[in-house]
Amino acid sequence: MTASPDLQTVVAEIADEMARRPDRGEVATYIPELARVDPARFGIAVVAADGTVAMGGDADVAFSIQSVSKVFTLTLALGKIGDRLWRRVGREPSGSPFNSIVQLEREQGVPRNPFINAGAIAVTDAILSGHQPREALGEILRFMRYLADDEQIVIDEAVAASEKGAGFRNVALANYMKSFGVIENPVDYVLGVYFHHCAIAMSCRQLAMAGRFLTHAGRNPSTGHLVVTAERARRINAVMLTCGHYDGSGEFAYRVGLPGKSGVGGGILAVAPGRASIAVWSPGLDASGNSHLGRIALETLAKRMGWSIFGA
Amino acid sequence: MTASPDLQTVVAEIADEMARRPDRGEVATYIPELARVDPARFGIAVVAADGTVAMGGDADVAFSIQSVSKVFTLTLALGKIGDRLWRRVGREPSGSPFNSIVQLEREQGVPRNPFINAGAIAVTDAILSGHQPREALGEILRFMRYLADDEQIVIDEAVAASEKGAGFRNVALANYMKSFGVIENPVDYVLGVYFHHCAIAMSCRQLAMAGRFLTHAGRNPSTGHLVVTAERARRINAVMLTCGHYDGSGEFAYRVGLPGKSGVGGGILAVAPGRASIAVWSPGLDASGNSHLGRIALETLAKRMGWSIFGA
Amino acid sequence: MTASPDLQTVVAEIADEMARRPDRGEVATYIPELARVDPARFGIAVVAADGTVAMGGDADVAFSIQSVSKVFTLTLALGKIGDRLWRRVGREPSGSPFNSIVQLEREQGVPRNPFINAGAIAVTDAILSGHQPREALGEILRFMRYLADDEQIVIDEAVAASEKGAGFRNVALANYMKSFGVIENPVDYVLGVYFHHCAIAMSCRQLAMAGRFLTHAGRNPSTGHLVVTAERARRINAVMLTCGHYDGSGEFAYRVGLPGKSGVGGGILAVAPGRASIAVWSPGLDASGNSHLGRIALETLAKRMGWSIFGA
Amino acid sequence: MTASPDLQTVVAEIADEMARRPDRGEVATYIPELARVDPARFGIAVVAADGTVAMGGDADVAFSIQSVSKVFTLTLALGKIGDRLWRRVGREPSGSPFNSIVQLEREQGVPRNPFINAGAIAVTDAILSGHQPREALGEILRFMRYLADDEQIVIDEAVAASEKGAGFRNVALANYMKSFGVIENPVDYVLGVYFHHCAIAMSCRQLAMAGRFLTHAGRNPSTGHLVVTAERARRINAVMLTCGHYDGSGEFAYRVGLPGKSGVGGGILAVAPGRASIAVWSPGLDASGNSHLGRIALETLAKRMGWSIFGA
Repeated sequence: MTASPDLQTVVAEIADEMARRPDRGEVATYIPELARVDPARFGIAVVAADGTVAMGGDADVAFSIQSVSKVFTLTLALGKIGDRLWRRVGREPSGSPFNSIVQLEREQGVPRNPFINAGAIAVTDAILSGHQPREALGEILRFMRYLADDEQIVIDEAVAASEKGAGFRNVALANYMKSFGVIENPVDYVLGVYFHHCAIAMSCRQLAMAGRFLTHAGRNPSTGHLVVTAERARRINAVMLTCGHYDGSGEFAYRVGLPGKSGVGGGILAVAPGRASIAVWSPGLDASGNSHLGRIALETLAKRMGWSIFGA
Repeated sequence: MTASPDLQTVVAEIADEMARRPDRGEVATYIPELARVDPARFGIAVVAADGTVAMGGDADVAFSIQSVSKVFTLTLALGKIGDRLWRRVGREPSGSPFNSIVQLEREQGVPRNPFINAGAIAVTDAILSGHQPREALGEILRFMRYLADDEQIVIDEAVAASEKGAGFRNVALANYMKSFGVIENPVDYVLGVYFHHCAIAMSCRQLAMAGRFLTHAGRNPSTGHLVVTAERARRINAVMLTCGHYDGSGEFAYRVGLPGKSGVGGGILAVAPGRASIAVWSPGLDASGNSHLGRIALETLAKRMGWSIFGA
Repeated sequence: MTASPDLQTVVAEIADEMARRPDRGEVATYIPELARVDPARFGIAVVAADGTVAMGGDADVAFSIQSVSKVFTLTLALGKIGDRLWRRVGREPSGSPFNSIVQLEREQGVPRNPFINAGAIAVTDAILSGHQPREALGEILRFMRYLADDEQIVIDEAVAASEKGAGFRNVALANYMKSFGVIENPVDYVLGVYFHHCAIAMSCRQLAMAGRFLTHAGRNPSTGHLVVTAERARRINAVMLTCGHYDGSGEFAYRVGLPGKSGVGGGILAVAPGRASIAVWSPGLDASGNSHLGRIALETLAKRMGWSIFGA
Repeated sequence: MTASPDLQTVVAEIADEMARRPDRGEVATYIPELARVDPARFGIAVVAADGTVAMGGDADVAFSIQSVSKVFTLTLALGKIGDRLWRRVGREPSGSPFNSIVQLEREQGVPRNPFINAGAIAVTDAILSGHQPREALGEILRFMRYLADDEQIVIDEAVAASEKGAGFRNVALANYMKSFGVIENPVDYVLGVYFHHCAIAMSCRQLAMAGRFLTHAGRNPSTGHLVVTAERARRINAVMLTCGHYDGSGEFAYRVGLPGKSGVGGGILAVAPGRASIAVWSPGLDASGNSHLGRIALETLAKRMGWSIFGA
């Protein structure tokens, strides 16, 4: 590894290497819209601290961001109700799969963190705060467009409808929390908003753009305005590091060494604080439900660029 | 906060602030030797990247490092058997208390990570590798002295004997793993070494010195030799970040933003990669079993020095 | 105790003793309709094998049978689909509270037995079998009236509506099972029927009459017709014995020694095979959710009459 | 089935049918002594209330009674410390396998019932009560000989030694309970006695003789003396019914309808109160760890004789 590798070159190399790998993981099948996605897809986009954008592969193809939306709804909910949010959701790794309900029984309906399904549903409830689902959803979408500086971002309604039809376990989680009083709004409202923000479609480029505030101490470089304070940006990064990959979070920290959040659509948003906002996409998942090639691409990128937060 | 705060000043301020705080947590009582420690104690030592040492409070008073030893036994075991170690112990946060046995049943006797008790016992078994307990213990002690550049480090035999007498749950954990074939050496040997390395007594200064290789890309600055590769140093830091504070690991990452490992003796070793190795000590613990003032001191230090790994 | 105690006398004594006891347990409060019931109520009705009826206290006051309905829905479902029912629900004690969801995650959505909530919901699904809720409910009600030989038995619609409003945990259980494919009909249909059959109101006398087939080798003494085979009657009794009182089933077997099924309305149906069908009612519950005085009354009755199935 | 089947004929038929069945379950392999037993073995002995003994197959071949000893140690412990025993061990079905440690963590080291391993270890601790292991063991053995009216009953020392060598999980269970203060004597003493009473060797005839007091309201028919009160005999039977077959207890109650206790040596002691004491033996086990043919033989016997406690 040279002292100053060229980002564009590294990104191009990674896109090339990933395109050639035969091991691609398993595409999620729980809804038909996701199952139909071509496993050969791979995209990567890196927005460096100086605004440079390096892209490779299918970096401009929109995909279903799924749980990556949880980073943005967490940010929005903290903006709305501040640290009171932490009364309804914890910030510890769960030690169990993304859709486990066991922990909820042991801990009185309070989800372990905002990045497992139950936690993101509780966060969505906090965003609703008595408003109509349509308003809450509009707010989330406007927030994404503002962060990404891109008005083209939309919700894939077919995916949203499909999620709703297959979402029995999420309905179970929400009702279970409701039985403990952790959910305040009607379950139908909360899940309506939840299924829709998981169905937001974005490209790697759009996603990397949207993540810039987490690398810039909370500031949106497009406007210069603070999205969150520097301390809150650090803290969101910390929660991403410890909880962003379900029961594969330790593995991601160990191999990649960057805060990141994955979605079952195969996308991962990763943050190299002070250096870059990164989005990768490859639809095949590993056993923990995280993008197989996405993780490998990020591991390679972090190593070649020397970006691990855990040392040189 | 100024652009370049002075480390000596910040450390002195923190020692002063901590000395005055009335909230001190609860001293561990499971063995008499720990229960007798004065809760008013507080020490801090910071070894900066340039070798500068800043100290405050009881920085030169030796205390029982307890589970902080797990960082060093992990390092040693990886040196002996390399990545094969990960067949016997995972590297995911556990989502449960330090001495839980539930997870072991679910996962066929393989502990979740090397920093919960079961995991550290499995790591100790790997260090033994057929040798006599006395030899393994000698090796651990020599390693600590080498890292800290200090031949005065010793094992507190009274603590070790006391641990053994009160260690029924650790005996249970070890036998449970043995029943799954995860432990290879005789249980008595493994626990003998385990109880003794937990009983190593060190001061904050010694501990911060011993942790330097984790901030220096694996290198021991006293000798210039590599203790581990840079990649392994990063990875050990990653495991400390995600698993170093039991079921309070997410909280520590969120508040402090540094890799760290705590012990029930009230010590914490923390690493600011490229910047400093830090040790704090205050015997009172919080509900998760981590030093109450130790965590607060580290949170204050990281904030004032701008050392969080999660951003400026 | 004399060789042949007189049933009428024993029942009268028990009613008298229970009326005077100050310890009455806690009335269930999760729905207002149940919370309003007077804790001073106590009723007992025993229908002996020869058709004699002995009653005491509020034996003719209707109460919400709640989970006691699970005995009858199990009988009905076995009549409809036979032993195929056991593919969807087990018959082992659960070792956990009545509304636990933990076991469902471990066992792929298949509830442990038909007498915990999840199991009774799965049984209700089997009764629906593609029909409309109204039809299924009509069938259940007609079955109860036939068994009790009493056309006056009705559903308390206020209770049913109230259950629905407070039934988030049951909604969670049903959706959770649906996510594993254990529930075949729409969740709303299943729960509609479930909430309504739990809301059937019956007196001790009606309930004891309805339980007669379980003491008569499956035969309804009013008509002489078989309700179930003798073997099935024995087996339903066996499931009542091992699973009929949630996580207090072992205690009930130990103290009372009769198959029985309790409901949170404070009713218990118990069976002394070949001897009597018994119903007791007292609204105050113990820590396991079973009628406190109801259990004591049955223990006293079984002891004085020498009716334990576990020996003289 | 005739109105009054002849016991001798039925027993002979069953021995014959079992000898011909190809499905024999899996012989336990965790210690070599058990693994060596011939899976073709089958024995049955029935001691009727009138003292008649009916036997078939290998009824006089001694086998390792293993967990069947738990019935007798429970009886002995209740005799020594009475109902205080129930402070250290519960009497609810566990809903988990025989050697699970999970429940112990949730319930502060108090085992669910005396018939899972942890519970039987706690019961053994109660029998020890400060005495030497040798004395306790002598007492247990004398008790067995007295009940069976047979001085030939001995402990198989090879099995006991082998258990000790392979008993890591039991060592774990005992130390775990010790950590909660549930075990009072030294763990080594308790396990020494436990491993030895599990290694008692008895034939079906001896075992059926030893179980007579449970069918005779607590009385030893050989001497006419009370072993336990009638109430205690009923209660022991109740615990056998709800907890006697680990996580297959519901199944056994459902199919056989008699209180029973199984051991991994393939033996089962069953009680038809007022009618007979029954022992069967066939070394092959089912998935829950209970004798496969033993259960089928008992199901057949109970059906043909009309002995179910759950009705005609």
